[in-house]
Formats: sequence, structure tokens, C-alpha cells
Amino acid sequence: MFEALFQTFEEPESGVALTARLSAFREELARRNLTGFVIPRADQQQNEYVPPSEERLAWLTGFTGSAGQAIVLAHEAAVFVDGRYTLQAAKQVDGRAWSIEPLADPPPESWLKKHLTAGDRLGFDPWLHTSAAAERLAAACTKAGAELVAVESNPLDSVWTERPPPPLAPVTVHPPRYSGETEAEKLIRIRMEIANLGADALVLSDSHAVAWAFNIRGADVSHTPLPLSYALVPKDGRAIIFIDSRKLSNSTRDHLERSADVEEPTALAPKLTELAQRGASIALDSASAADALSRLIAGAGGKPVRGNDPVGLLKAIKNATEIEGARAAHRRDAVALARFLAWINREGPSGALTEIDAVEALESFRRDTGALKDVSFPTIAGTGPNGAIVHYRVTRKTNRRISPGDLLLIDSGAQYEDGTTDVTRTIAIGEPNAEMIDRFTRVLRGHIAIARAVFPDGTTGAQIDALARQFLWQAGVDFEHGTGHGVGSYLSVHEGPARISKLGTTPLRRGMILSNEPGYYKADAYGIRIENLELVVGAEIAGAEKPMNAFEALTLAPIDRRLIEPKVLAATELSWLNDYHARVRQDVRPHVDEATKVWLDAATAPLQ
Amino acid sequence: MFEALFQTFEEPESGVALTARLSAFREELARRNLTGFVIPRADQQQNEYVPPSEERLAWLTGFTGSAGQAIVLAHEAAVFVDGRYTLQAAKQVDGRAWSIEPLADPPPESWLKKHLTAGDRLGFDPWLHTSAAAERLAAACTKAGAELVAVESNPLDSVWTERPPPPLAPVTVHPPRYSGETEAEKLIRIRMEIANLGADALVLSDSHAVAWAFNIRGADVSHTPLPLSYALVPKDGRAIIFIDSRKLSNSTRDHLERSADVEEPTALAPKLTELAQRGASIALDSASAADALSRLIAGAGGKPVRGNDPVGLLKAIKNATEIEGARAAHRRDAVALARFLAWINREGPSGALTEIDAVEALESFRRDTGALKDVSFPTIAGTGPNGAIVHYRVTRKTNRRISPGDLLLIDSGAQYEDGTTDVTRTIAIGEPNAEMIDRFTRVLRGHIAIARAVFPDGTTGAQIDALARQFLWQAGVDFEHGTGHGVGSYLSVHEGPARISKLGTTPLRRGMILSNEPGYYKADAYGIRIENLELVVGAEIAGAEKPMNAFEALTLAPIDRRLIEPKVLAATELSWLNDYHARVRQDVRPHVDEATKVWLDAATAPLQ
Repeated sequence: MFEALFQTFEEPESGVALTARLSAFREELARRNLTGFVIPRADQQQNEYVPPSEERLAWLTGFTGSAGQAIVLAHEAAVFVDGRYTLQAAKQVDGRAWSIEPLADPPPESWLKKHLTAGDRLGFDPWLHTSAAAERLAAACTKAGAELVAVESNPLDSVWTERPPPPLAPVTVHPPRYSGETEAEKLIRIRMEIANLGADALVLSDSHAVAWAFNIRGADVSHTPLPLSYALVPKDGRAIIFIDSRKLSNSTRDHLERSADVEEPTALAPKLTELAQRGASIALDSASAADALSRLIAGAGGKPVRGNDPVGLLKAIKNATEIEGARAAHRRDAVALARFLAWINREGPSGALTEIDAVEALESFRRDTGALKDVSFPTIAGTGPNGAIVHYRVTRKTNRRISPGDLLLIDSGAQYEDGTTDVTRTIAIGEPNAEMIDRFTRVLRGHIAIARAVFPDGTTGAQIDALARQFLWQAGVDFEHGTGHGVGSYLSVHEGPARISKLGTTPLRRGMILSNEPGYYKADAYGIRIENLELVVGAEIAGAEKPMNAFEALTLAPIDRRLIEPKVLAATELSWLNDYHARVRQDVRPHVDEATKVWLDAATAPLQ
Repeated sequence: MFEALFQTFEEPESGVALTARLSAFREELARRNLTGFVIPRADQQQNEYVPPSEERLAWLTGFTGSAGQAIVLAHEAAVFVDGRYTLQAAKQVDGRAWSIEPLADPPPESWLKKHLTAGDRLGFDPWLHTSAAAERLAAACTKAGAELVAVESNPLDSVWTERPPPPLAPVTVHPPRYSGETEAEKLIRIRMEIANLGADALVLSDSHAVAWAFNIRGADVSHTPLPLSYALVPKDGRAIIFIDSRKLSNSTRDHLERSADVEEPTALAPKLTELAQRGASIALDSASAADALSRLIAGAGGKPVRGNDPVGLLKAIKNATEIEGARAAHRRDAVALARFLAWINREGPSGALTEIDAVEALESFRRDTGALKDVSFPTIAGTGPNGAIVHYRVTRKTNRRISPGDLLLIDSGAQYEDGTTDVTRTIAIGEPNAEMIDRFTRVLRGHIAIARAVFPDGTTGAQIDALARQFLWQAGVDFEHGTGHGVGSYLSVHEGPARISKLGTTPLRRGMILSNEPGYYKADAYGIRIENLELVVGAEIAGAEKPMNAFEALTLAPIDRRLIEPKVLAATELSWLNDYHARVRQDVRPHVDEATKVWLDAATAPLQ
């Protein structure tokens, strides 16, 4: 019925056949006089999505999660994963060759201290670790009397014969009607930040920062329009972009050359060396810059200055054009969402649909907008007990029938050229029980508390996070993830530096876009999450004594009324909900078919 | 009518006569080959209240605030104070000799960088600064090409001829019926913490920690029953208490000698030196330990390990006996508060009373309990515009008549042997206006949000602080102080490490006592604050999925119903208020006179 373009549902390869790879890898290590090696799930830039050519961890171990690490020693090998991946790793990894260990509490360094022996030479690829991570490894080696060895070339790549080539997706210009600010203007602001840092130059080691600064987009990884690249911005003089020229059309190259020199990626090291040899202080983003960059700069006599990439904050604060784009993208997305929700409401209770059917239908409705560039991440469609798995991704094997009595949790998003969306709705299939309604209403009240929050300019996400949790806490329950993350403008759906979480120490500034997504998960039973994207705006309050901010909901989709206990809602909460639904109805109704209109009118009718 | 025992209302001496002191001090600096000196408002232990012998800043400058610093250079001299003291300092300090500068943003170090010249020798007394503070001074000197010189003896003391002797108030034993845990048991727990730190010994440089660990109390400073003292607790072997033996009766000495050796304060340095010479790691509390201690340890070959004094956390978590004591102290205090509130309600509207009358009356009602040892701090009684001064303390000069239409803010507390209290009530004198009612109701809703909060074990004060502010934020207003501080058990009314504030990173643990005191201040008009002390208790919730905590209000005093707009309150808020008032009535009614009973019944009648 539907053809899914951007998502697949295949199980990754796993198990037995991979054992030969581990033997070959160990032989290679021996040839290189190494007794062990660390293989992170990372590319050179610590990207969330990595191209197939960087899937070393999956190739060697079979484990395909989005976070993890392996360590191979002569007689032991371990795969380190976090709690959400423990079960998946146990299924994918050959238990005879590998042990599964925690990625934190304790960290892999604890395992290392136990298994390294004095004299061991543990190798690592300094292009795949940040300096902080390399320092942790080095400390663990020192304690064990072992040596950490930075390799020149990755030994895994030597045995990975069928390794895919790096991606060469064409780069496009992100035009002013979407970006709202020229590269020249952005470079002026970046140079002010470089001056603030007291540095001589800044390395953009995060492709998102390069994409933002130079108004380009690409397609080198899944779901994020990322042109893998680097840039070097000196305090004075011309910036240099390092990017494979095969990705550039003539017009894109012309665009870039208006504000920078364009070089091949191989030129990064010599250019940095040249600068460092003059004793330059070179600012590096501690979250994305490879340890190899620090080593290179220090080795050539320069001073690597690690810190937060200032472009992260510039990029997070959207300008007026980006904000208008986000609103348009969400209005467009809302039409697809309404059609989807009406469809699932109609078809769901029959018991004939599966999670994959839901994912395909939603992507298809989004494709019908004519503007869909990609989904912004693989849709999470978990019905019944699958909804309780926070990072669930349906495969043909796990695919579950959507049945009456289920809660269906759908977390999805779209990439449009004018904006990135991310929305979660939880849908009652048939009759929900009393506990589901109680929990959903508590989650909703937390969502509304964030949506209605007014807070002084300068307030951090950490300060307001508990507003989302207070009603769950009253019942002795909670959710074990942050309340919200930043979202890019036709870029990554997970963008720093601000977030709404007890760890969110960045002030929320006007123009930032953050998700608001409290939830509740009952293991083996059901999951609930309600997510809108929120724009930070100035709050106009008569008599206000200081500048205050508030949120404007960008996402426009009905929240399932059948899961709400209206008697529990405060008057202010009820009026927020009814106002929100009225806005959804008004914006969406003119753009949908008759059947969806009928559903929409009912789904957005005022509650009292 | 009333005789105030523990509080006075005199203006401190100020101005002109002090100029001679500055000249004498500069001459002394010249004799010592110093070109400047730093005079903090601090004793050796960074105490909040210091004895008269340590009031160097006030003696030299005239400034009597509870926080500040002076720097004297050859041709300039400055007094550094925070925002709340700017006006007071301008009045107290001779403007021809001193400039008034900010204590933060920028800090005194910025002023130093501007006024120091290369070759300057800036002196400081390492017993009066923490190591962190000394390091900041040293960095400023280095930047200016000047030298920071730690003096052996304080040059100010050489010219302060009439300097009072150090206090020698008798030390008493804090008996098991109040402390609930023997010194021996506490020492076992302290030694476990020393082992956790990997240290060989711990210096208790905070007299509160000594008082808690050895179950003694004293009277060396105002309002806190502090026996000024040090202790040294080695990992193994006997602890040593350093305290002036003139403060000890035979029975108190016997008590102390059961668990420790008792030495004169002068023995601290040689004993530390002895330990340090053996290469010991010695843990120091970075908040209270004088830089002199670090220098002494490092100089003798030991290793000073700066960090949070683990006794701070042990002391903050009250045991069952201390909790019962706190409840009893608050029930007792509640009787005095009810009598006071009934009295002010009766007499206030006449316009005949002043702020000092209110302070004296309240202290007198507390004295009538027969158990009052001291007030826990000078009562803040601010009527009308004085209520908006957060740290207001009435003097004969500022004393204001309490007039109809005023809000009267009274923040006060008592020291009883079984517990320390701290309570703020805001009272409408005559008819409050609509804005006052709006603001008071917002403050009250914030207070109730904290009082009703339920939160997972491990939650910090920073996570819940915004609950107290949310309703004020909705109106574009806020209060510029923390929501709550820890409170000691017959010790300091301001106790770490936990607090409810955006800076409160310590988890709130069961048995901690914290204030809950949101407010609102309209400059030149009125102040509002509602403060109860809250005990952290376990929350019993059917079906809870993790350990949850909640607060139990210890303070029992009616909240002025005339200032509440009941229509704005949620049902849960209204029932909290009515339940709280019912509890107040039930606990207090049997213990008050007929007139107070009549007032109490009206003041605690249910609102709807």
C-alpha cells in the first residue's frame, strides 16, 4: 500500500559469520605490535548518524546501536553499551567471542584496568575519539602499567576489505530565503566570538557548524542533511572549507568561494600545521574535535584551546527567516499528521494494522506534502509493550499488531528545507484503562506546565525541567530521559547546546527551538509521550519588572482527548488545551479532506 | 513595656573619627614594607557572625554589614560591598577616604588590577582568607606585576589598641536527649568519610562541625551557640580538640576527654606540622579552612586536600532525636508566634506601634516560653517600604511607625536547645490593596508548590527552585534570593550544604531541614515573604516506582487570610492551606490565652 522511501525495517546482520573478522583483526593488531584496540561507534566528528564507511563497530561486532564501543585485547573482547541497548547487543553479538559490558557506571576504563596487563600496548585511532575520551583511556592504561598508542592508520580498515567508500552526496546551497543570513554576516559574528575566546583561529570540526556557517546542506548521513566537511576560520584573513570537491557542483563551489577558500579534506592537516607552526592559539570544539587535531596542533608548536564551539550557540538561536520557516514547516507537517491520526483512528481498532504499517503511512502522508526531503530520524512506532521501549525502532521481527486496548506511541519527524520537525503523539486504540488515563493526564499536565511557562531571560533548562515532572512525581513515577532537546533548522533534530533537563546549564534564549516531551513508560505494558517543538519567544506581560520569555508551540497536532481526565485539569490547563486545539483546527482544517475534517473537528472539540 | 534581651537597635559608630585609624594603619603598613593590605569581613573560620575581636573591617572603615572587604593601598582605599549594602556603606564610610566598590561583577580583583602598580607588595592575613580567595588575590597581583605577601601577624591588630579580647563564653554539653547520637558514634561515621576521601586526617575548621561532632555548644558569637574551636580527626588514633581551656568547666572537659584530647588553640599549628612532616594527606574544608592551614601543611611536607567538609552533610541530616526536638521547638515557637500575631492584629491598625515595638514584643513572647536561649538572628521587621529591603535591620534611626495600609514583614527565629527556628510572616495592617493581594497570593502559591512537592530521592534543590517562582514569573516578577537554606539543630540558622536555589546542587536527603521562603519586594512600597521550615521526609505513595521524598512543614503559624485571593487557588492549594491552618489551630489552641484563641480561630478558619 505504501512505499517507504527513507526508512527500512530490516534486522541488521548478526552473529556467527562475524567471528572470522575478529580473528583477522587480532592478527592485524599482532602485525602492528599492538596487544589491543579500542573501536568506538564514532566517526571523525562524533556525529549521531555516521555513514556506512564509519560503521566499524557494527562491522566487527554485529552491534548496530547508535552508541557503544568495543575493546579487543589478545584474549578478551568486550562490547560496551548503555541500558537501552543491553538486550539488543546480547542478540546481535556473538557471546562466545564478546562479553557485553556497561558503557557507564562503571565506564569501559574500569574494565580496562581489570583486563590490561603491565606492558600491554593498547591502540586507538585519535581521529575517532575526543581528547577528553583519549585522556580517560590514557589514565586507565597508566594505572595498569600499559601504554596507549595513537595509530597513524586504523588497523580495522586494513582488514575491512569490503569497506564502503566514504559518502559523496552532492552539496546544495541553503538559500537566503531559508537561512536568513549571508555567510559573510555569519563570519563576522564568528570572528567576534574568536576574538572573545582570545584565539587566533577556530576549527569547525562539526559538519553542522560548517553547514550553518556557509549556508550549505548535504546528504552524507541518514536523516540529517549533513555535508561532511571541516572549516578553519582565522581571526583575520580568509576562511578555508575542507570538503571533497566531488560533492560540489560548479554553482555550489562558486557559492562557497564567495566567502572562503575551498580545499580537499587532506589539506586540513597541512593548513593547521602551518598555522600552528606560527605559535597560533587554535580553538577546538571539545565535543566534536578529534584528539588527532589537538595532537597535530600541539605537535607543530601551536596551542589547542578546547571549549564549547561558539557556533553551536549562534546556530541554536534562529533568526526571523528561520523562525518563519519553522512555522511553515510545522503547518505543513500538521496536515500530514492530521491525515495520519484520522487514518489510524479509523483503521487502528480493527486490529489489522502493524507498527510498520503506521510508519509507512505516516511517511507517505508526509511525502504527499511534496516538500519532504527526509524523515528527521527513524520513526518510533511502539504499540502496547513496545511503546515502553524509549528508543524502539520497529523491524520485521519486532513488528507488532496494533490491537484494541493498546496505546500506540508514535515519535517522528520530517526534514523540510524550511525546517526540521519532531513530534510525538500517543493514541488510544479502542478503550484505554483508568491507569493509562491517569498517567497520560499527568504527562499532559507536565507538557502544559512547560508550554505555559514564563521565565526570566537567562533561565536555564535545568531550572524548568521539574515543571514537566511534578505531576508524575506526585504519583511516585517519573521518566528517565530529558524533557527536551534543541532542534536545528533543516539540520540535526538533536542540536545543542540548550536542553530542558537537569543537566541543561545553557540559558534558554529567544529564537531557540526545543522539544517539550515528558513521558511515562510502564515496562512490558505501554508507553506515553507527548512532544511538541517549542520556540522561545519574549513574553509580553503588563507590569513585568524584567525581560521574560515564554514558549510558542510550533507543532500542531491534536492530543488524544480520550486519554485526558478533564476533571483533574486546572482551569488554566484546560484553557491552554482548548486554545491549542482551536489553533490546530484553524490552521489544519482548510488543507485536509472531508473525512479528516470530520475527525479533526471531534478531536479538537473543547473539553470541559 | 518590653525588655529586649538579645537584640539592640543602635546605629553603629561611623564616619569622621575613623580617619585617624586609617592613617595609623597606613603608617604601620609602611613600617612593615607593605604598600597595601586586604581586610576581609571574616574571622579565621569564615563565620557568618564574628566576635567583636574580629570586627576589623568595621573598626577600620565604619562599615558594619555582614559581608564586605576593604583594600588599603598607599593612595587609594576602597570598601567592597554587595548590592544590599551599597546605601548603608555610603552612610557609614567616610567618602573622602574610601571609595565604595562592588563585591562582585566585577570582583575586587578587577579594582586591584587597575590600582596596583608593578613592584607593589600587597599584604594579606592568611588566617582570614580561604585558599581559593588567596589564589584570586595572588592572580590579580601577578597580572599587575605586584607581589602578594602573607603576613605572620596582622598589621591592623598592631594599631587597634582598644581591640576587645577574644570571647571566652562557657562551653556546655549538648546532651543526648537533644543530640541523639554520641560523640563516639559520630566519630565512627566521620572516620568512614575520611577513609572515603583517602585522607590520613581531617581538620574541622568550622566550629559548627566541632560543636556537632563533639556534642558541645557555646556562646562566642551572637545568635549561634558556637564554641569557637578546631578539631583534628586522624584516620586512626585519638582526635584532638583545640579550644581555649578557660571556656571549659571540669564537667565539660570530662565530656570532651571521653572521646578526644583537649589542647589550647595554639597547639593546632604544631600538631598539624607534626602530622604533615610524616607526609600525611590532610583533608580541609574549602569553605571555612584558612589559607594559613594549607600553607602550614604544605610547608611541612604534607598534602592539603581541599574539598567539602564531609561533616557538613552528616550534620545536615538530622537524626530521630533532632527531628523530634525540631518539632517540639516549633510547637513551642508557634505559641509565641500566635500570641504575637494576635497582638499585632489587635494593636497594629491604631498606628501607635513601631517596628522596634514589634521586635521587642515578639522576643518577649518567645521569652515567655521559658526556653529561649537566643534569637537565631536579629529580627527583620520592615513595615511599608522597609519591608522591601531584604536584609533590613531596624535601628532607632530607621524605625518606622506601623500604619494602616502597610504590609508588615516579620522574619525572625529562636534558638531553643532542642531546635532552631526561622519563620517569616507578612501581615496586612488595615486594608491591603489589590496588587498586594495579587502578589501575596502568587508568593503563597509558590510556597505551597514547594510545601506540597513530591520528588525522587536524589533530587537537588536546584531542580525544585522554580516551583516556588512559577506564579510570580507568570506576572513578570521574581525575587532575587534563594528559595531556601538549610537550618541547624540548635546551631546556625544558615547551614549547608543543601539549599533550594538554582545553585543548590546537593541532593535533598531525608532528615534535612530547609526553609521555604519565596517573596516579592516592591522597592519603596512593600515586601512580602512567607517562610516555613520544612523537614525532608519519605513520601508514602501507593504504587510508587522509586523512593520519593516530600516536605513536612515544621513551622506552625497562620498565613494572613486577608492577603489571599482564594478564587485563584487550585483545589489542591486550597486544601493544603486549610489543612495547614487546621493543624496550626489544633497544636496551638490549647496553649494560648482566650483573646489569642479568638483571633486564632478566625485566622485559621477554612477558606473557600
